[in-house]
Amino acid sequence: MNTKLVKTIREAITLAGLKDGMTISFHHHLRNGDYVLNLVMDEIAAMGIRDLTVNASALFDAHAPLLDHIRNRVVRKVQTNYISAGIGRHISAGLMDEPVEYRTHGGRPRDIALGITPIDVAFIAAPCSDRMGNCTGKYGRSACGSLGYAFPDAMYAKKVIVITDELAEYPLTGWSIPEIYVDYVVQIDAIGDPAGIVSGTTRMTRNPVALVMAHTAARVIQNSGLLHDGFSFQTGAGGATLATAMYLKQIMLRDQIHGSYAQGGITGYLVDMLNEGCFRALLDVQCFDLKAAASIRDNPNHCEVGAAQYASAGAKSSIMDSLDVAVLGATEIDTDFNVNVHTDSSGRIMGGSGGHSDAAAGSKLSIITAPLFRGRLPIVRDHVNCISTPGKDIDVLVTQAGIAVNPRREDLRERLTQAGMQVLEITRLRALAEQITGTPAPLPPAGRVIAKVIGRDGTLLDTIGERKEEE
Amino acid sequence: MNTKLVKTIREAITLAGLKDGMTISFHHHLRNGDYVLNLVMDEIAAMGIRDLTVNASALFDAHAPLLDHIRNRVVRKVQTNYISAGIGRHISAGLMDEPVEYRTHGGRPRDIALGITPIDVAFIAAPCSDRMGNCTGKYGRSACGSLGYAFPDAMYAKKVIVITDELAEYPLTGWSIPEIYVDYVVQIDAIGDPAGIVSGTTRMTRNPVALVMAHTAARVIQNSGLLHDGFSFQTGAGGATLATAMYLKQIMLRDQIHGSYAQGGITGYLVDMLNEGCFRALLDVQCFDLKAAASIRDNPNHCEVGAAQYASAGAKSSIMDSLDVAVLGATEIDTDFNVNVHTDSSGRIMGGSGGHSDAAAGSKLSIITAPLFRGRLPIVRDHVNCISTPGKDIDVLVTQAGIAVNPRREDLRERLTQAGMQVLEITRLRALAEQITGTPAPLPPAGRVIAKVIGRDGTLLDTIGERKEEE
Repeated sequence: MNTKLVKTIREAITLAGLKDGMTISFHHHLRNGDYVLNLVMDEIAAMGIRDLTVNASALFDAHAPLLDHIRNRVVRKVQTNYISAGIGRHISAGLMDEPVEYRTHGGRPRDIALGITPIDVAFIAAPCSDRMGNCTGKYGRSACGSLGYAFPDAMYAKKVIVITDELAEYPLTGWSIPEIYVDYVVQIDAIGDPAGIVSGTTRMTRNPVALVMAHTAARVIQNSGLLHDGFSFQTGAGGATLATAMYLKQIMLRDQIHGSYAQGGITGYLVDMLNEGCFRALLDVQCFDLKAAASIRDNPNHCEVGAAQYASAGAKSSIMDSLDVAVLGATEIDTDFNVNVHTDSSGRIMGGSGGHSDAAAGSKLSIITAPLFRGRLPIVRDHVNCISTPGKDIDVLVTQAGIAVNPRREDLRERLTQAGMQVLEITRLRALAEQITGTPAPLPPAGRVIAKVIGRDGTLLDTIGERKEEE
Repeated sequence: MNTKLVKTIREAITLAGLKDGMTISFHHHLRNGDYVLNLVMDEIAAMGIRDLTVNASALFDAHAPLLDHIRNRVVRKVQTNYISAGIGRHISAGLMDEPVEYRTHGGRPRDIALGITPIDVAFIAAPCSDRMGNCTGKYGRSACGSLGYAFPDAMYAKKVIVITDELAEYPLTGWSIPEIYVDYVVQIDAIGDPAGIVSGTTRMTRNPVALVMAHTAARVIQNSGLLHDGFSFQTGAGGATLATAMYLKQIMLRDQIHGSYAQGGITGYLVDMLNEGCFRALLDVQCFDLKAAASIRDNPNHCEVGAAQYASAGAKSSIMDSLDVAVLGATEIDTDFNVNVHTDSSGRIMGGSGGHSDAAAGSKLSIITAPLFRGRLPIVRDHVNCISTPGKDIDVLVTQAGIAVNPRREDLRERLTQAGMQVLEITRLRALAEQITGTPAPLPPAGRVIAKVIGRDGTLLDTIGERKEEE
């Protein structure tokens, strides 16, 4: 019987011909429950292979063992779209000689497809695979739903290794990635911790500030002229962004508005909106909870999209290009509407663009929901520490104290004011923030460049400087 | 609203930048009902563009107007996997200066992916598309089911034009080809004649010779050692090959054998076998009838596969590599088991490999069903006029007068004889044929090369020589 099954990860690495200095890749659908990146990196380290570039669609705190592989020069360079704070602060402290290359969820597939960031060996954690590598995230005890971010890795890497903990009879139907791209399949005991892969349910926030912002954001959408039959929508899984969907749903059901689709990372809340007729389809690059993972398995209108189809500016089009409204977050936003989602207020890495810049650029209306301040730090500032998404792509800022519209969107300001909404200057929101927090002291100058922020079109947007721990 | 819709085929051709000497491509899922190839070629001719290479996955008699475009030098060269007799005899008569390049259904996607046969502009006839080019064959009044042969064209052509007669709301879910590959969408009145696209139902043959061969072929499969749970199968839509499925079904139901999948071009007969539990899945690159087209739309275990996944020897694997048994036809077979499906007994083009060579090479057991003679011409001969599939890839010949096993498969001959089946030498079958038909006079020498037969791995298998009409 024809098979691509090999016994161990090590055997697959050997067969794939991995050598010093090559590039390997990982996807992040198993999120903070992922075991695969660490298992593979430990094996590579034990094999004595060094100076690798790791291209991972995102890095979570579960991947902290990677830090030791960086220290030991197993890993020389990192390319990613997101780094969680637990890893980020070490990168910020100057762990790596070479700067991290940050991309967006749309820039990564673009640069892989264009050969700008070639991959030698892709490791694909797959909750279910057959012996020939037809694999999916929809089935198996580690089911995570969509495997969209891994599509470009599978299509363009020279060698592709699928690592699974559930082997299906050939042929697995409903594959996410077909066998034509796969070289080797390894079955292991567990590819991840189900509790960390998808949350049980995405909880709706009860934070009153978040609810106020969400309610306002929903009114902005309602009055934008975009909320009619065919409406399309992207939002996140966190606080105010998800709560915006809650208020939006009330409006859509009340006014019998039948949207076309919601997209991006998908929560059970958006599944409910699909099932209640708010949308005709969900286009899903990442499932955030169990309800989303079950829905993408069972509902043909809940469709998996690859990273290129989600967001690539290099594709002939992506679903971003048809998006009406995106509701996004920010760790900082400045008076030119530039948004920072890479660093915290001390300039240390604690995130990344993910699909932020892509959705902001693609959507007809991009809304940032952000509180005026967090702790004692203002969120609206003169200049962000890092430009993650350029201000030209942001239309509206919603805070608990009011909204500001990008001067570039005078048409929108008029619509909103005519609808009775008060629109403030963004400098006024900054002043309101600083009334409470005081004017923040400027950060001391950063050190050498430890990360480059590359925009979705491949241009350098900004750099992030070293911040020693003692600062 | 973002859209790729343009008003006319001409506008799309102009926008795509089509110029003299370029290569354009077409797929053949609309079969003899296709309007699109002719509409596009007429438009190109009217625009004065010349010297094109046409890469079409197959050409049917409905495409006869292409002959005039060849005469007028709009078309300089043809690359294809199949040419029906009505067009083939003109090619054989010397219509073209450059030889036709024949490939297989697996060789075509291989050579497109490798850049051996680059495509400048692909024209994709799609029974349903949205404004951004997400398109499928599953819906619409011209529904044809799978669009698998068009996948490589979409993925690798520099420009891709989708031509549809049914525009769906964005986003079309259940796309065959996603928008990331599509440049322009044109809506026209009709892309084809439904009567010619898929037949109403595929009729089971009543020809007694075909039924005898089919019954024998099913017994060969039964006694081959391959017919057990997990069994996989490919057969055609014609006479004895489809009838083999009928007898096989009886055996599988009686003996409660649960196969894994049937693949290739799919008929309603195979759909019945899926629904009755003979197979767990259908992997479909081409629907032959209405029942197949409805099933691929409605049954998630009836899966669309692209041409590379079906058969490419350049992919990391294709479903061919897991295939147990293929039942195939032949216009001639010689005593070395070489098979001809390109030319008739007078040496004139009337077909092509399609997936013949791919299935023969990939399967563990390849069976040719062919009558000893057709009309007054023997089918089993000393040498075939054209080697379409090399004898090394053929295991068994089944005729109405008995079976022959390739000497390469002594193991199989033993199995069959132990099961009580009489196995003859293939030379004996040739002699039996010639007893009835007489020894055929050798064909007069052919003229210059008018077609090259390129194997699935890219090597030249054979050439076909000119045959003037008056011969």
